[in-house]
Amino acid sequence: MSPAAQARKPGRPSKTADDPDRRTRILEIAVSQFGRSGIAGTSLSAIAREARVTPALMHYYFGNRESLIDAIVAEKMQPAMAGVVEAMKNAGNDLRSQVHCFVRTMIETIASRPWLPPLWTREVLSEGGMLRERLVGRFGAPLGQKMRDRFADAQSGGQLNHDLDPNLLFVTLIALTLFPLASQPIWRHHLGADDVTADTIANHALALLERGLEMPT
Amino acid sequence: MSPAAQARKPGRPSKTADDPDRRTRILEIAVSQFGRSGIAGTSLSAIAREARVTPALMHYYFGNRESLIDAIVAEKMQPAMAGVVEAMKNAGNDLRSQVHCFVRTMIETIASRPWLPPLWTREVLSEGGMLRERLVGRFGAPLGQKMRDRFADAQSGGQLNHDLDPNLLFVTLIALTLFPLASQPIWRHHLGADDVTADTIANHALALLERGLEMPT
Repeated sequence: MSPAAQARKPGRPSKTADDPDRRTRILEIAVSQFGRSGIAGTSLSAIAREARVTPALMHYYFGNRESLIDAIVAEKMQPAMAGVVEAMKNAGNDLRSQVHCFVRTMIETIASRPWLPPLWTREVLSEGGMLRERLVGRFGAPLGQKMRDRFADAQSGGQLNHDLDPNLLFVTLIALTLFPLASQPIWRHHLGADDVTADTIANHALALLERGLEMPT
Repeated sequence: MSPAAQARKPGRPSKTADDPDRRTRILEIAVSQFGRSGIAGTSLSAIAREARVTPALMHYYFGNRESLIDAIVAEKMQPAMAGVVEAMKNAGNDLRSQVHCFVRTMIETIASRPWLPPLWTREVLSEGGMLRERLVGRFGAPLGQKMRDRFADAQSGGQLNHDLDPNLLFVTLIALTLFPLASQPIWRHHLGADDVTADTIANHALALLERGLEMPT
């Protein structure tokens, strides 16, 4: 139960407020509005309006803006990132399998959550983004350091194109998965690339990496 | 002369207002504040305060917010993009030369303008970005379409890795040049990658593309 719900007093919204579907729906609307207008540029009452709930019910579910952000991180972003981390744990120690697993899992995870790329652009990639430290510090950095070390090992063992930079190789993995999905409204429109699917993006990334990394077959 | 300057009336700021260095300095401060806080989140008086000029002088130079944005596009962004377009015109018809020229010129152009990546993230890549159509429509799209067609030609002639997608290949060129520079505050800090220079980024991108594109030598 959320702190806001625990603290509810007599005079709280009626029993129907305990509708888990409604809470989920409000969270969906919140991540989408935050992605469109930024967290600082979105009022809780604008979210309540689009969700067709009263400000009192909004407060009952999420308390203030800070607890709403906590709920988004815990219930929307963390499960997405945890899925990638978990898949990587099961990818074994072979570098090629790890690269394939990362690319495919990242693209599946992001493509099935259309609210994620705009929110990431505004609140992680942008200067002063309110989710940057929460997401990168907790998920991105540990995974990035691990893969960077794995690339550096492979490279010193002659198992990786020696002209690549191991630090930049993790940045490249993000650039070939998250970035094409974050920029797709732009390139789909201007290149007329409507037939590109999530699979096309994954296959393209892997075709480039397969040859570019020069991993032994 | 700007429309605002043309329309100046008696009672305008004194002769010293016609200091071109001051105008340039105000523009520098504006692009940097817009990158940090977004165009919508930055008042003209905040820019005037940081530039240590009066609101009247700010108005004398740039009129309203809309004309300030026009000035930024015309005097800051357009010259940057035009430099890349010009270099590409002189790169000849060889695909490898074109790819090398694009990567090196993009990275030099962006690395020498630290205000550009944050502004691009907020106002081009973000949903609702106020510079998106002005920049992509005018510069990004024509160049992107041209290179996409060049990649498609090379591919049908067997001169390019046939597993790549020509539309996504232009996205990949942006992903390997602009994106690493836009995300560098994150990866430099969390990967401890302080020794990576603009040259490292260009060499890494080209090492990946040289092998990945499978262009004939």
